[in-house]
Amino acid sequence: MNKVKIINDPVYGFLRFPEQELIQIINHPLFQRLRNIKQMGLAHLVYPGAMHSRLHHSLGACHLMGIALDELKAKDITISKEECLAARIAVLLHDIGHTAFSHSLEHIITKNSSHEKISYIIMRKLNEKFNGMLDMAIAIYDSSFSKKYLHQLVSSQLDVDRMDYLNRDSFYTGVSEGVIGYDRILQMLTVKNNELMVEEKGVHSVEKFIIARRLMYWQVYLHKTVLGTEQLLINIFRRAKELAIDKKELFTTPALHFFLYRKEGVSATDLEENPEYLELFCELDDHDIYTCIKVWQKHDDKVLSMLCQMLVLRKLYKVVLSSQSLASILSEKEEAIKKMPGFYKDNLQYFVFEGTTSNNTYSIDDDRIAIAMKDGRVKDISEIDNSLVNQTLAGPIHKNYICYIQ
Amino acid sequence: MNKVKIINDPVYGFLRFPEQELIQIINHPLFQRLRNIKQMGLAHLVYPGAMHSRLHHSLGACHLMGIALDELKAKDITISKEECLAARIAVLLHDIGHTAFSHSLEHIITKNSSHEKISYIIMRKLNEKFNGMLDMAIAIYDSSFSKKYLHQLVSSQLDVDRMDYLNRDSFYTGVSEGVIGYDRILQMLTVKNNELMVEEKGVHSVEKFIIARRLMYWQVYLHKTVLGTEQLLINIFRRAKELAIDKKELFTTPALHFFLYRKEGVSATDLEENPEYLELFCELDDHDIYTCIKVWQKHDDKVLSMLCQMLVLRKLYKVVLSSQSLASILSEKEEAIKKMPGFYKDNLQYFVFEGTTSNNTYSIDDDRIAIAMKDGRVKDISEIDNSLVNQTLAGPIHKNYICYIQ
Amino acid sequence: MNKVKIINDPVYGFLRFPEQELIQIINHPLFQRLRNIKQMGLAHLVYPGAMHSRLHHSLGACHLMGIALDELKAKDITISKEECLAARIAVLLHDIGHTAFSHSLEHIITKNSSHEKISYIIMRKLNEKFNGMLDMAIAIYDSSFSKKYLHQLVSSQLDVDRMDYLNRDSFYTGVSEGVIGYDRILQMLTVKNNELMVEEKGVHSVEKFIIARRLMYWQVYLHKTVLGTEQLLINIFRRAKELAIDKKELFTTPALHFFLYRKEGVSATDLEENPEYLELFCELDDHDIYTCIKVWQKHDDKVLSMLCQMLVLRKLYKVVLSSQSLASILSEKEEAIKKMPGFYKDNLQYFVFEGTTSNNTYSIDDDRIAIAMKDGRVKDISEIDNSLVNQTLAGPIHKNYICYIQ
Amino acid sequence: MNKVKIINDPVYGFLRFPEQELIQIINHPLFQRLRNIKQMGLAHLVYPGAMHSRLHHSLGACHLMGIALDELKAKDITISKEECLAARIAVLLHDIGHTAFSHSLEHIITKNSSHEKISYIIMRKLNEKFNGMLDMAIAIYDSSFSKKYLHQLVSSQLDVDRMDYLNRDSFYTGVSEGVIGYDRILQMLTVKNNELMVEEKGVHSVEKFIIARRLMYWQVYLHKTVLGTEQLLINIFRRAKELAIDKKELFTTPALHFFLYRKEGVSATDLEENPEYLELFCELDDHDIYTCIKVWQKHDDKVLSMLCQMLVLRKLYKVVLSSQSLASILSEKEEAIKKMPGFYKDNLQYFVFEGTTSNNTYSIDDDRIAIAMKDGRVKDISEIDNSLVNQTLAGPIHKNYICYIQ
Repeated sequence: MNKVKIINDPVYGFLRFPEQELIQIINHPLFQRLRNIKQMGLAHLVYPGAMHSRLHHSLGACHLMGIALDELKAKDITISKEECLAARIAVLLHDIGHTAFSHSLEHIITKNSSHEKISYIIMRKLNEKFNGMLDMAIAIYDSSFSKKYLHQLVSSQLDVDRMDYLNRDSFYTGVSEGVIGYDRILQMLTVKNNELMVEEKGVHSVEKFIIARRLMYWQVYLHKTVLGTEQLLINIFRRAKELAIDKKELFTTPALHFFLYRKEGVSATDLEENPEYLELFCELDDHDIYTCIKVWQKHDDKVLSMLCQMLVLRKLYKVVLSSQSLASILSEKEEAIKKMPGFYKDNLQYFVFEGTTSNNTYSIDDDRIAIAMKDGRVKDISEIDNSLVNQTLAGPIHKNYICYIQ
Repeated sequence: MNKVKIINDPVYGFLRFPEQELIQIINHPLFQRLRNIKQMGLAHLVYPGAMHSRLHHSLGACHLMGIALDELKAKDITISKEECLAARIAVLLHDIGHTAFSHSLEHIITKNSSHEKISYIIMRKLNEKFNGMLDMAIAIYDSSFSKKYLHQLVSSQLDVDRMDYLNRDSFYTGVSEGVIGYDRILQMLTVKNNELMVEEKGVHSVEKFIIARRLMYWQVYLHKTVLGTEQLLINIFRRAKELAIDKKELFTTPALHFFLYRKEGVSATDLEENPEYLELFCELDDHDIYTCIKVWQKHDDKVLSMLCQMLVLRKLYKVVLSSQSLASILSEKEEAIKKMPGFYKDNLQYFVFEGTTSNNTYSIDDDRIAIAMKDGRVKDISEIDNSLVNQTLAGPIHKNYICYIQ
Repeated sequence: MNKVKIINDPVYGFLRFPEQELIQIINHPLFQRLRNIKQMGLAHLVYPGAMHSRLHHSLGACHLMGIALDELKAKDITISKEECLAARIAVLLHDIGHTAFSHSLEHIITKNSSHEKISYIIMRKLNEKFNGMLDMAIAIYDSSFSKKYLHQLVSSQLDVDRMDYLNRDSFYTGVSEGVIGYDRILQMLTVKNNELMVEEKGVHSVEKFIIARRLMYWQVYLHKTVLGTEQLLINIFRRAKELAIDKKELFTTPALHFFLYRKEGVSATDLEENPEYLELFCELDDHDIYTCIKVWQKHDDKVLSMLCQMLVLRKLYKVVLSSQSLASILSEKEEAIKKMPGFYKDNLQYFVFEGTTSNNTYSIDDDRIAIAMKDGRVKDISEIDNSLVNQTLAGPIHKNYICYIQ
Repeated sequence: MNKVKIINDPVYGFLRFPEQELIQIINHPLFQRLRNIKQMGLAHLVYPGAMHSRLHHSLGACHLMGIALDELKAKDITISKEECLAARIAVLLHDIGHTAFSHSLEHIITKNSSHEKISYIIMRKLNEKFNGMLDMAIAIYDSSFSKKYLHQLVSSQLDVDRMDYLNRDSFYTGVSEGVIGYDRILQMLTVKNNELMVEEKGVHSVEKFIIARRLMYWQVYLHKTVLGTEQLLINIFRRAKELAIDKKELFTTPALHFFLYRKEGVSATDLEENPEYLELFCELDDHDIYTCIKVWQKHDDKVLSMLCQMLVLRKLYKVVLSSQSLASILSEKEEAIKKMPGFYKDNLQYFVFEGTTSNNTYSIDDDRIAIAMKDGRVKDISEIDNSLVNQTLAGPIHKNYICYIQ
């Protein structure tokens, strides 16, 4: 009897990993490093419970994949043991390419490289080490595998990734309204013409899922203070990078040193082609970043030290977020800062700036959420009678924001 | 020190009733009878956990009223101790006029009388007994009290009644998706121009509330089997009433005897004018009904006995529910039954029939849900930018159903 | 593909019944009648949420049995599909012999017959109808089946019956402290020498289970008001039976009439030998009892009407519960009542009386809870190092009570 | 109207801080730094959800204090607004003296200084800054305040600190069995002769609390892997300190540099007398430590680099934990390591060692848990009839452990 790995998870109870391949991957240092990357970045400055890690999210998504596949099999959809394992691996590793502070820094630490691209690179590296064990998982991930619905479970508008992060982030933030009835949705999943679908009677559960996601975006992920804090972190790194390129000395860890001081930046291709770069990438996590920010509070550069103090001492940007134009408030705040001492007015863009954010409650253009009607037809969820997800909801909502100091 | 009444409630933890007036009302037999009227009627045939009583719901709504008022007071809205008590009493008694099996039988046991009308009658009777203690509560209930928002908390599209029943019914059915973030909604309540409102930042919580209600309607309250069971109960009583008017003998309890055998029916006015009728009304509860139905299974009348057996043995109607026309299925089923033995075909309407049901996700015509915008304006929730509650959602959805035996 | 029956349960999420045999039994009227017998009798007078039924508890225990067996199989203990089904049936039906208001009336409605005996009779009757489908289930139930641990899962100090009722009763009463970590206990189960055991590392979970049960007994099941209400119900039936034997007329349902008026009482053997008696037994449920009590409030017999009014109007006995002797309070109360009008003082035993109740936190004499130590030894849980369950806890606690009116 | 600070907490719902003094303290950098010290140190290596911070725990304990005081006031115990605030402050700051990785490193980073001592120093520093605002809070903390029970709520065997950490740690680890019914315990609190007590009817809730704590200790806090990981962290620091004293170069942050390289160590008195030392102390948090450990993986010192790799790559010590003597296993493991390459056998104490741990389920010697009996007497919880907390439970349990590499 092989040993089953059982992990306590406050969200789902127990996570069980009977597959030895999964246990090997979970124990691998490249996966373990996700422990040190917070799922929600700096959102814990607003929601103090939100300290959970990408590792925990990845385990949870892998757990949901197991349930989803069991449900499909109970509906007489043939999925082999090998395919189940591959789908579980694919989702377990879907976030493996995240760097410190995830989304905030992903385009700063590396250049022109989404975390998906880097996940893909790391999966292939792992596959070499594990002698091809991840072949099918990679095919599912890059959608080259014949059973398209397995890819959809990994990545679509109704994938187990979203289900886990909505559930988990709701749980840890305490924003209980974001909780979704994942068990009922999973139970309503089915497959038709190689496409993942929801049975007609599950429509209201999917509606609730979509609304829960909408709520989590505007109330948590795009909460104005969270947004401002993310911008602050980005600005700290922009400034540090400027100083580094300018050959100024900065306290860093060895790994961070490489990414800060490399003039031409580091692209996904660089990571792929240079094993030692990838190794440095994998050494980086939230600890490096925050440790340096704490030290930089006393740096000679006034802009950098000021920004770092703002973060550490929690004197964050004031933020206005609105669907209206904010041009007049922006000018007013710019005028105010121009009257402040030199380093402020000479570096206006660090102390007052505008931006745009947006969210799609449901996107018609992306891979649709398909509903298997009782009468045999298949409809996009936005097409069914009395649909909640209609034209209005289906377009992205854009909002403007400005951040400024006082 | 007066004794605080503390009641365990799995939904909210502890319910506290420090007000002696509330304790007196709770202990009154007219209130205690709600213990024997299930909140969800026969829905437990589908959701076995749904056995909770109107008494429990009324206590819960009264608890939420207390929280709502505390929130408003914390926002410097002046509400006197007397007004708080009155609002708590009003909601505690809002369902006091329900009869056995609530909505299903309310137009059968009495005629032309909603439970609201009868609640109003009973409140006034109680008020006499309590020497005017309920004066203000009654004014809040009938909306004659000057602070309109207190009435809105008792009865509107965002009242504590709805909040409690959605929460409680979700809890007891196990349809966890119906759970609403009542605490956050209550926290976002405010009052402006004497009207109950939700602060702008609470919009997404209200959206979730509206969608949770929509889901509970289509998934639970109007679940096709629940709907069919309700129709079965109604038909049993229609038949029993026919037999009674026809002077046939039926096993009954004394209270039920009166309501079944009174040829001209019993109206709210009758109840109001004849204390002994009201007393009989208050003696009735779910027990009388179900006990008689069990006995009637062996009644000589084949239609009555058949219908009662269907309920007790759980051989319920087959039900089709659809937004499409069901005329052709109806004729087909009628033809089938016409070929069955005499008592079936001669009483077709008891064994196959159609009906319509509907639900409003949000009604623009009713008392609106008002949003207090940050910029000082007040908007209907259907008018705000990117509103979920738009024209489509704001109209009622009608569905047709047919019930039939096989 | 056979249809899986899925039932919503707020306690465990979803209950799944893929076995067609189980579905057949669940749908049988004899099982469905458990819907109308409340699991906790009249405890809802103290804990208003406690309205759940024996049917729901039986479904829940059957669900836990499924999990328990899956865990054992995952530990390489061979259990056939047929044995799994049989164990699930055995626990599904373990309470099938309960009558109206369960424990309170079980020795009043029938004589010298525990519900276990009657369960056994009904199981065998069902087995005839189902042509031997329950053979193995019955063998497990009566402990004649070779795999003793299957019987222990149905009935022992750590059976799934206890696990479900503790969990469920905690859930519905809102006494959250009674909640047990059933998933961890189930996960720690193992089998050795044909005996059910708990792995050593699960000792603390079992301790918590034992303490949760102790708490539920003293705080809920033996709560003094609950105890007093039970005694009131028993006294109502004693009195009604006296009147019936004395040929007095009483409003009853046909089923109840039989049990009240049969002079020599009805024993388990009577039920077994007379199919028509058993049928009447199965027609009885909580509804009959409560309906009659409501009517009896106006009975000519002053004692009966007074007791019934006490229950319906919730003017319950005062109760004193103590580990001390209550003799002096008893005499004092008796003296007081002797001064009251005739029917009180002539029927003293109905208005003031004493009794004893007891509970065993852990019984050494019963089937022990066995711990499988890491070193291979097996110990009784009371024998391990630093055991919580020692001599003191292992003896029963007796308490005296008196009930009286004021 | 002053702004109320409302913080989402998944454990209790919403935490409300209407007191401006509390908001000032919460916003202070010295308090905010607790955000970066995990409540459970490295326990997340076993329980991945356990990432919550000391800040969150402190907020939660402060919330429970508010509820406790409200309950006492509802029982007519006079507590002034000022005293309430002071008690809330005292518990909010009770952990302010914790350093990086809390208990594990508290005797390594500083010498001979518990975190309580340092909390006391920091409170007094804060008091200076806030011009005496903390006077009464400090008196409550050091037990010099006249109302002894306020100190007991901050620090005793039934304080809000324990209640919060048991609840919170259970919640975040997912070890649901550790959850305590804090609301019922708080409701049962009372004060008599200036001593905090529990009403007699709350005895079973306190028993459950004590057993939950016992379970959390053996299952979580003293889980053998958690224990081993803590020892690993301690050994890393012992080694780093040796190297530092030996003038070897080590990558460090400025704050950590001070504590590592100061030959004579840093005592509480040092911190108190040198503001710049205290400042450095407050700059340290979990980030510094983990960042350095990651870098030290490549340090020249083989022992240090090996230990750091063990932690980062999660190749943790094997641990045996037992109430038996482990001497023979220890020798065996020592022999094995003596055969390994030089740096292992020359530094045996880092690679195989023994230790002792212990936990007291209830301590009779400490400030007792007093029960206010209904008859007016006061008893220690270990003295009441049928007490769970008897002689056996009241003594500490000692266990031996050995840690070793393979």
